[in-house]
Amino acid sequence: MEINEKAYGLGSKRSIIREIFEYGKKRSAEIGAENVYDFSLGNPSVEPPRIVVNTVKKLLKTENSILLHGYTSAQGDQGTRKAVADSIKGRFGVDITPDHIYMTCGAAASLTISLKAVLNPDEECIVFAPFFTEYRVFIENAGGKVVVSEPKQSDLQIDFKDFKGRINAKTRAVIVNSPNNPSGVVYSLKTIEKLCEILKEKEREYGKTIYLISDEPYRELVYNGVKVPYVMNYYDDAIVCYSFSKALSLPGERIGYIAVNPAMKGCGNVYLAVCGAGRMLGYVCAPSLFQQVIKH
Amino acid sequence: MEINEKAYGLGSKRSIIREIFEYGKKRSAEIGAENVYDFSLGNPSVEPPRIVVNTVKKLLKTENSILLHGYTSAQGDQGTRKAVADSIKGRFGVDITPDHIYMTCGAAASLTISLKAVLNPDEECIVFAPFFTEYRVFIENAGGKVVVSEPKQSDLQIDFKDFKGRINAKTRAVIVNSPNNPSGVVYSLKTIEKLCEILKEKEREYGKTIYLISDEPYRELVYNGVKVPYVMNYYDDAIVCYSFSKALSLPGERIGYIAVNPAMKGCGNVYLAVCGAGRMLGYVCAPSLFQQVIKH
Repeated sequence: MEINEKAYGLGSKRSIIREIFEYGKKRSAEIGAENVYDFSLGNPSVEPPRIVVNTVKKLLKTENSILLHGYTSAQGDQGTRKAVADSIKGRFGVDITPDHIYMTCGAAASLTISLKAVLNPDEECIVFAPFFTEYRVFIENAGGKVVVSEPKQSDLQIDFKDFKGRINAKTRAVIVNSPNNPSGVVYSLKTIEKLCEILKEKEREYGKTIYLISDEPYRELVYNGVKVPYVMNYYDDAIVCYSFSKALSLPGERIGYIAVNPAMKGCGNVYLAVCGAGRMLGYVCAPSLFQQVIKH
Repeated sequence: MEINEKAYGLGSKRSIIREIFEYGKKRSAEIGAENVYDFSLGNPSVEPPRIVVNTVKKLLKTENSILLHGYTSAQGDQGTRKAVADSIKGRFGVDITPDHIYMTCGAAASLTISLKAVLNPDEECIVFAPFFTEYRVFIENAGGKVVVSEPKQSDLQIDFKDFKGRINAKTRAVIVNSPNNPSGVVYSLKTIEKLCEILKEKEREYGKTIYLISDEPYRELVYNGVKVPYVMNYYDDAIVCYSFSKALSLPGERIGYIAVNPAMKGCGNVYLAVCGAGRMLGYVCAPSLFQQVIKH
């Protein structure tokens, strides 16, 4: 073929979610946006918090515009990374520093970079059904193989017997997504503890590292006092992929981060692999204006 | 290795350019920014044009903030892509539409996506020395092999004899960068015509497509009436990778695009491969606020 077959295959099939989004936009133009309920892409229905908009306005007034819109370090502005690290430390008690934080252009980029950083060719990554369909694309792009663990049919929580059976000598990573897209399922503290216990047992059994990658764009979207446990507190080999898209109603601004657990053995090398993977993907850094917003 | 070797290798070696940038920032903190002349990353020394800053302020006042900061289509906002297409049409006379434009988070992302879209494993991509060092990372990440054509020592222009000798049955793409980083060399109309003539001849000889990828972040940085020819007017199988970083002094905001020549045979499929490659890299779309700035 005169072009890359895989890329063409993915581009011509398109994402079903993006397909529905495009249809929604077409129908909006025909019958009015107020008559279309678009459940495709997860564009929020609430405005960004006033403090975000006000901070943007303030920065535009007060900051040197060359610096405000200029290149940051590839891993993100030092001050922004410090603000993120301090926030994680304050909320979850993890002793994390800016040198464990890598700013990205959103959760999808956080995942592609993290997977590229830890997967070697033909290693396996376990995902729990139902899962965000693009996980498959990201894992395969990193040269890995997708292994699906089926949930309990009654409540779509993890079926630990099924999960345990999927782990083998080729398993390098496991992705969790709580609150889950699409099911809305949240993992309890007990679930996370059990999951991490199994992973530690399997790490010992196979004498290798198995990374737990926690995809957390929906962390803040819980109600009635529900708590989402922070995986770093229960498992050393944990990487958190975060996005401000949903928390701050800024999905189009493409800003998120990767946090590498400082308790991980060799966390410095994993962080360097994250930096290298970011280079391979073309410095897909977070935009500087919104990095400053996060900092302020 | 417990992590991806290539990613670790790239992350631990780091980019020399980024290394110098970090050193400059450290020295700025020690002796004051006014005493450090940083020639590393190409952060501009002039402010963004007032119309850019004013447009941002106006959009923040007048637009629906949910839409302003919301997801756009993966290939970019339709109106933004139309503005880009109209601008190319107006300036260079190319009959291009929004369906040939794919918005990205900067020129580096434009290149990684374009290379991923057209290269198959072990195909070759020719670059002209001296070249932006990251080309090697981007080409190898796409599974391709870098082939370097040495320039004429007298003026660093293309040595056509050398270039011709580098093309073979495995050549799939050629990257040009005019004005060139780092040399500043600009290719004249005569040079582009000669280059395209050779490429057409070799396409016929080998019975295959050879893509000419034009990396153009510096297009607007020419003086004294120097003209930079638009490759689409001289070669059908051309892809233009653009960034607004330097033209609008917005390098940190990560906004650029890929333009596929509508005259290319199978340009629709190449565009779909670009969309697919964008998915593989984790929807590294251009941030929506600055897409709106480009549109307005």
